Amino acid sequence: MSLTNAYGFMSSTSPCRPLSIERREPGPTDVFFDIAHAGICHSDIHTARGEWGPVTYPIVVGHEIAGVVREVGSQVTKFKPGDRVGVGCMVDSCGECGYCFDGREQFCEKTIWTYDSIDKFGNPTHGGYSQAITVDERFVFHIPDAIALDEAAPLLCAGITTYSPLKRWVAPGMKVAVVGLGGLGHVGVQIAAAMGADVSVISQTMSKSADGLAFGAQNYYAASEPGTFARLRSTFDMILCTVSTTEHFTGYIGALTPTGALINVGMPGDPVMIQVRSLLPQRTMQGSQIGGCAETQEMLNFCAEHGVRPRIEKIGADQIDEAWQNVINSKVRYRYVIDADTFGTRG
Amino acid sequence: MSLTNAYGFMSSTSPCRPLSIERREPGPTDVFFDIAHAGICHSDIHTARGEWGPVTYPIVVGHEIAGVVREVGSQVTKFKPGDRVGVGCMVDSCGECGYCFDGREQFCEKTIWTYDSIDKFGNPTHGGYSQAITVDERFVFHIPDAIALDEAAPLLCAGITTYSPLKRWVAPGMKVAVVGLGGLGHVGVQIAAAMGADVSVISQTMSKSADGLAFGAQNYYAASEPGTFARLRSTFDMILCTVSTTEHFTGYIGALTPTGALINVGMPGDPVMIQVRSLLPQRTMQGSQIGGCAETQEMLNFCAEHGVRPRIEKIGADQIDEAWQNVINSKVRYRYVIDADTFGTRG
Repeated sequence: MSLTNAYGFMSSTSPCRPLSIERREPGPTDVFFDIAHAGICHSDIHTARGEWGPVTYPIVVGHEIAGVVREVGSQVTKFKPGDRVGVGCMVDSCGECGYCFDGREQFCEKTIWTYDSIDKFGNPTHGGYSQAITVDERFVFHIPDAIALDEAAPLLCAGITTYSPLKRWVAPGMKVAVVGLGGLGHVGVQIAAAMGADVSVISQTMSKSADGLAFGAQNYYAASEPGTFARLRSTFDMILCTVSTTEHFTGYIGALTPTGALINVGMPGDPVMIQVRSLLPQRTMQGSQIGGCAETQEMLNFCAEHGVRPRIEKIGADQIDEAWQNVINSKVRYRYVIDADTFGTRG
Repeated sequence: MSLTNAYGFMSSTSPCRPLSIERREPGPTDVFFDIAHAGICHSDIHTARGEWGPVTYPIVVGHEIAGVVREVGSQVTKFKPGDRVGVGCMVDSCGECGYCFDGREQFCEKTIWTYDSIDKFGNPTHGGYSQAITVDERFVFHIPDAIALDEAAPLLCAGITTYSPLKRWVAPGMKVAVVGLGGLGHVGVQIAAAMGADVSVISQTMSKSADGLAFGAQNYYAASEPGTFARLRSTFDMILCTVSTTEHFTGYIGALTPTGALINVGMPGDPVMIQVRSLLPQRTMQGSQIGGCAETQEMLNFCAEHGVRPRIEKIGADQIDEAWQNVINSKVRYRYVIDADTFGTRG
């Protein structure tokens, strides 16, 4: 057991504060690594504030984690000290079910999440707003040399969350719309463009249109402008919806081709009213949640090869509260990444 | 041009009455055939009564058509006089778009429907409640010897409507639920069982459970029974929903495995309220509408090989109004098929 500096929350309303948390000694298949950077995902905020259900406090969040290996267990084969590595939303799964066997660990009933879960030793898991972490090597990924550690961090959630559904649906030449140009959307646009899609952004307003085109979109539409969805009827083979609002769902479905798919990675709190027959003749609505381990490594390699990089703003520990407020107010451009060196002197 | 006896409707409220309608002389690629039987589909009723939008009267409906070829055009290669043939919901399409090229003619923008469409000569199309029809050979199918003409008729809509989505989703051993044991559902259960699925029926009550098991279901559940959907949580890889009610949608989605799919072939008039996040981690809702031409022939061959047969009740022209009333009141067991000989002396 070793102690590591972290930043966490004591209740759903408290500000971020320094904590000291325990990390287990690496077992035979574990990788123990020093965290260099952790991205800030909106899920961190929803979870820590209890908006998605009850949480055990204190909680240390963060599931976009990049760092450098310090020590590996005796049976670890994929990693050695000094390797540049990342961890995303999961740190373990049963390893035996059909989903685990297929490399779709995200669907395993016994998935252990990076934070707010109980690990196989009965201890609460704590995430990336900390200086070190111990994770089974199955859930640790190599960060390709081409990607800086600070830019790698957001790929571990925002990257895989958009890559996985795009990989499932997109073929070169397809018309793809990404709804929302935020932390997920701005990565999704780059990935879709790199896959050869003809990419459009549907954002609430035109305020980020120059950025959208720079990320690789061909077109940019404002959902709030009258007539937008009438104009976009039957246009897109796939729409990747990264926002949590539900107001334009009828418009999104109408904007699909007869066999188009609306993939939702956002988690709206409100229910949405849809006409089932608007899915005829063969339109699809599908949820999507991160991706499997092998696919996460594939995503990192893809991003390295195709120059896909999140646009980040680096912050220190003392800026986390303010950064969260900006995420809530959609003022982030486009992902905050915390420098773990600012958590204190490393142990 | 030749005249043929038919039964049709002069307005949205009028009863069925005898009519004489024109059929074109077969062009080079046309098949002209004597209709032996036509199935009654609920869509016939919705359309003729103007419930799905304005209709041109008089209208002759029916898109489950089986008969015997009388004459073929000079360039017809697939059929000859005396062949046993069928026609479903479509009689033409552009033949040039990506969908037509892929054998997915049902998505073509220029699909010409069997009734209530305008054909390429500018004339209204009329359906199977008649004694003869002329159709381009691309939209005519061989009825395998193993299937009687009266039993073949319903397969041309109810068969392909259930076969196509089952073919897309089902692998042997999968758990499949069919919602509704009506004209579509009772065929869907047989097809899913023949594909090797472990089939359940979810019906409003248990009243048809013996039939459901006889058609090949392993389990039968009553949606109206308290606790049914709690019991069925995360159970089915696929749910094929053949009904037009929306009350249990939340239950259906909850009954899907993490990667399960709810396929809707019913056309509810009311909107449904769903939580988008109930589709996480990777659940699917999809519409489905008939199938392509090649797939329709494949379905007929599959049904012949696997003993899939609709359970029919044969009626004459004078029973159409009463049969429609029974369809509306869910009293049909399980598909009415009209004997076209009862329309009058054949010309």
